Amino acid sequence: MNEGEIVWNINAIITAEIVYLLHTFVFKKIFISGKININMKKIAEGKTKIVYEDGDRYIIEFKDEMTAFDGLKKTSFEKKGFYNKEISVKLFRILEENGVKTHFIEDLGGNRIAVKKLEMIPVEVVCRNIAAGSILKRLPLEKGTKLNGIVEFFYKSDELHDPMISEDHMRFFGEDPERIKEITKKVNRILSEYLEKKGVTLIDFKLEFGKLNGEYILGDEISPDSCRFWIKDRSYDKDVFRFDKGDVSNVYREIYEIICGD
Amino acid sequence: MNEGEIVWNINAIITAEIVYLLHTFVFKKIFISGKININMKKIAEGKTKIVYEDGDRYIIEFKDEMTAFDGLKKTSFEKKGFYNKEISVKLFRILEENGVKTHFIEDLGGNRIAVKKLEMIPVEVVCRNIAAGSILKRLPLEKGTKLNGIVEFFYKSDELHDPMISEDHMRFFGEDPERIKEITKKVNRILSEYLEKKGVTLIDFKLEFGKLNGEYILGDEISPDSCRFWIKDRSYDKDVFRFDKGDVSNVYREIYEIICGD
Repeated sequence: MNEGEIVWNINAIITAEIVYLLHTFVFKKIFISGKININMKKIAEGKTKIVYEDGDRYIIEFKDEMTAFDGLKKTSFEKKGFYNKEISVKLFRILEENGVKTHFIEDLGGNRIAVKKLEMIPVEVVCRNIAAGSILKRLPLEKGTKLNGIVEFFYKSDELHDPMISEDHMRFFGEDPERIKEITKKVNRILSEYLEKKGVTLIDFKLEFGKLNGEYILGDEISPDSCRFWIKDRSYDKDVFRFDKGDVSNVYREIYEIICGD
Repeated sequence: MNEGEIVWNINAIITAEIVYLLHTFVFKKIFISGKININMKKIAEGKTKIVYEDGDRYIIEFKDEMTAFDGLKKTSFEKKGFYNKEISVKLFRILEENGVKTHFIEDLGGNRIAVKKLEMIPVEVVCRNIAAGSILKRLPLEKGTKLNGIVEFFYKSDELHDPMISEDHMRFFGEDPERIKEITKKVNRILSEYLEKKGVTLIDFKLEFGKLNGEYILGDEISPDSCRFWIKDRSYDKDVFRFDKGDVSNVYREIYEIICGD
């Protein structure tokens, strides 16, 4: 290291310090690549998303990772997080336009969205139009049976393997299953209608809700990770990865183009 | 064999024939040991009960066999069927007196009762006042948590290991979960009150329903096989057998004396 380099390094440190002070005391919020506050704190990281706290809202970052079967099967591909974010944004916007309250605030570009701070309830709400997936192992149903939007509740617990719970269990845990079912069935009607116009059948989907001021608000994501999308009898969702039905990266790009295109 | 024996045998055959003809054409119904029609046909045999068809009603025979853990653990003891029958009769009568319709028609003595012919629905309806048993493995609850009579539905299928089903599944299968829950909660109030007077806490119980003229009627049995009865914190039910907590024969006799005694 020569003297020039030392001077350059000191200058670099001073510059960094000034930038830091400006960030902290002057600008309050500095947006880098999609309005991200560099002071925001990571508060949770799951298999496919990271949640940051950003003042009075959360930032959700969609990862390129993908898992199935309780995390036993894993992959990742470029732009997976971007596709899931884009599809979620599109579908949240359609729901909001049709009177469903969601946690979505704004698209921050890239893999990120800003959302409302909900107090999440640890329940997966599954709505099924056509029998597919896990229900075929649980109940004596033929694949393809019409289920007319039946709703199931699953308690989120890796340890207990997300057991199904009854409506009375929901009430016992202090929740209102009737209200959640009402919103879920409305979501089903709105999304099914929108997707049908694009030639996509909404086979089933999983929602997660949180509470804000005592009201249920739709949270989480709505993406090929959490929905079964079929075009004719082909899957355009995570089943392609689960059951090795083709190039999952291509399928995610295709369904993104179909759902988000004009 | 000498000549005398042959004559005796022929006489016996002729006598039997006459008795058979009398049974079939004259008396129509011949009652032996508790008004059982000897012409009645066995239509189903389960792990602990046999069902016979007897004209426009069924006869249920309570067996002395006992099984647990999907039939993996087995035992039997004298009078087990009798105790379960006596307790079921007592509790069905109390329910009928309080306006709950059951399949019970009459006590035929011994191990048998006559019941209405219901079209059974293949669902176990479980009502829980205190957390115990399988729910502790499924949900994050402490043993002893008060559950205030929550109701769960399980689809009866040995092959699928009786999976829990949601209220929407019940509706999908053409049933009315609200009505079944209403009757179940009424049963819970009536039985809990009766048993509490005897010093017995009704922890949880399983019911099975059938339909008659489009109406839900309580079927099956109500016994230490299908209920958890606690006196203080001691089990007086099948848990004694499941978990080797003592002499199950004594415990069944004791709970029979307590529930059926004055």
